[in-house]
Amino acid sequence: MTELKNDRFIRALLRQPVDVTPVWMMRQAGRYLPEYRATREKAGSFMQLCGNPELACEVTLQPLERFPLDAAILFSDILTIPDAMGLGLYFTEGEGPRFKNPIRTEAQIKALGVPDPEQELRYVMDAVRLIRRELAGRVPLIGFSGSPWTLATYMVEGGSSKDFRTIKAMLFERPELLDQLLDTVARSVALYLNAQIAAGAQTVMIFDTWGGALTPSDYCRFSLKPMERIIASLQREYNGKKIPVILFTKNGGQWLEAMTDTGADALGLDWTTDLADARRRVGGQVALQGNLDPSVLYASPPHIREQVGKVLASFGKGNGHVFNLGHGIHPGIPPEHVTAMVTAVHELSMPYHQ
Amino acid sequence: MTELKNDRFIRALLRQPVDVTPVWMMRQAGRYLPEYRATREKAGSFMQLCGNPELACEVTLQPLERFPLDAAILFSDILTIPDAMGLGLYFTEGEGPRFKNPIRTEAQIKALGVPDPEQELRYVMDAVRLIRRELAGRVPLIGFSGSPWTLATYMVEGGSSKDFRTIKAMLFERPELLDQLLDTVARSVALYLNAQIAAGAQTVMIFDTWGGALTPSDYCRFSLKPMERIIASLQREYNGKKIPVILFTKNGGQWLEAMTDTGADALGLDWTTDLADARRRVGGQVALQGNLDPSVLYASPPHIREQVGKVLASFGKGNGHVFNLGHGIHPGIPPEHVTAMVTAVHELSMPYHQ
Repeated sequence: MTELKNDRFIRALLRQPVDVTPVWMMRQAGRYLPEYRATREKAGSFMQLCGNPELACEVTLQPLERFPLDAAILFSDILTIPDAMGLGLYFTEGEGPRFKNPIRTEAQIKALGVPDPEQELRYVMDAVRLIRRELAGRVPLIGFSGSPWTLATYMVEGGSSKDFRTIKAMLFERPELLDQLLDTVARSVALYLNAQIAAGAQTVMIFDTWGGALTPSDYCRFSLKPMERIIASLQREYNGKKIPVILFTKNGGQWLEAMTDTGADALGLDWTTDLADARRRVGGQVALQGNLDPSVLYASPPHIREQVGKVLASFGKGNGHVFNLGHGIHPGIPPEHVTAMVTAVHELSMPYHQ
Repeated sequence: MTELKNDRFIRALLRQPVDVTPVWMMRQAGRYLPEYRATREKAGSFMQLCGNPELACEVTLQPLERFPLDAAILFSDILTIPDAMGLGLYFTEGEGPRFKNPIRTEAQIKALGVPDPEQELRYVMDAVRLIRRELAGRVPLIGFSGSPWTLATYMVEGGSSKDFRTIKAMLFERPELLDQLLDTVARSVALYLNAQIAAGAQTVMIFDTWGGALTPSDYCRFSLKPMERIIASLQREYNGKKIPVILFTKNGGQWLEAMTDTGADALGLDWTTDLADARRRVGGQVALQGNLDPSVLYASPPHIREQVGKVLASFGKGNGHVFNLGHGIHPGIPPEHVTAMVTAVHELSMPYHQ
């Protein structure tokens, strides 16, 4: 495989020295880009876009053509695994993802199979292989999955939820049954991420979007532990290269110490945690990724630059910072505001790496 | 005025000994109660219910008839102040509160007046006086207001928001203008809460629903500081009785130390913070109120009792705990599940107070 021309993202995740702070954005291939909307139109539906490796590759590369980003992330959905398990994923206008066959009974949980990534999820692996080839070493490719708890919320609720009524009833009434569901999902995620690594992903990230809706002890048992088991079974080196693992629990700022002990190389942070505090709390054991408030990008370029400067200053000098938003980019952001952010990260971070 | 027959809520807020842990629920007068839905029907709209002191009194007392709660809370809306400022509050089905005249320009901010609580908000003060009389000392009455930041988000966005696009653009581009808006709102809140105290409120609570959407430094400047100024100007004693102040920032678990320094008597906590940790962090300076995950009430009574036991155990022995949910009760909860919770709090907390 081609050598990486720009490896500062990988180096920062491994807490090695870099010239400037690397930057990418969650949902960087997304609706804020007119070229994304055009490809999406061409594909038909969102799922047809995810399911077509050529088009998934096309949208993955689009933001790199516009902005000097330091990483690409596979364009896909977090719900591919439950869909491959037979739950029947579909999208409704305004309501987000839904499942035709939610999982609620003990019999359904026991009947759930672990999908073979090169069979039922072949379209994702093909996309990884194609993107990796098309990237030709420009920047590293990030593979990803939703966390078991996050996937389970959609699987049990049948879609998005405000209060997680059904899965929390299961959590309080039949915790061992939920453990079983999470175990099947965790084994599926581990296989899926290892297959992405074998297909060419150079970093993997676990998105725990809904772990922050739990109490500390429930988070530990039902979200963190399954993620820890996944991390323990991941290939951490492939073809002689380290494969860093990033863990991101939205609203998980209170639990950084516990997240640090999972064996992840880096933690993603939303904007409610100060990077200087976080750095002190994780004690140099992991790199940190984040954490500009995505709403900053609604402001004008000079104000974006000012806020980027504050985030860089809060991390300060030294290794182990990847710049990112604290959550996915909002669909209404003008692309030139992203240019202002990326440029500011590279320019303003230089003094912190001298 | 009548002496309180049950003062354990006030005593717990002041960290004095009690026989059992006092308990009340955010949104205890609400849609989960059939009798509330009947009164609401009778009133016409939600705002007509808030605006009618007799009906507001009726729904305030309803949960006390059913459950041995240790406090009553004024039935009202957090948006009465901006409505009194002339923004034109109305409610739409499914979309929540909206303002006819959102505040977005410098001229609008400069033109905002501070409402006189006994004039434009007279209906609220009348409700407080009536409820206090009808309570006849059974339990204390809690008055409340939204925090300046929380009120400002609705005032600027014109309603509920997911990403706070407009107010955050103001925050990043014209922070001093936002300071000015928050200052007017803070002065209005202080007057409003002092008027509630004069009308009979025996505790006041500030609801900072959206402070948790800010970065730590923005939280400090735009949410916490205005609340601190309000607390400094509140009547803390009335007719020879202490008036405790409770501060609640949803998703504020990372900032408890800063909240402790505001001078509040108690902090409200959502369920993402462990009470034992919180207690250690606030170092006996304030009481703590919370923090059962409201979704526990979807589970069956024996499981509710089990989870109540965990919350009580996490606080442990000693003074300064008021039991509550970590957020408002969900509308779909069966009332008998609330009975299970309240009974469990009183029964299971006895050993912690011996």
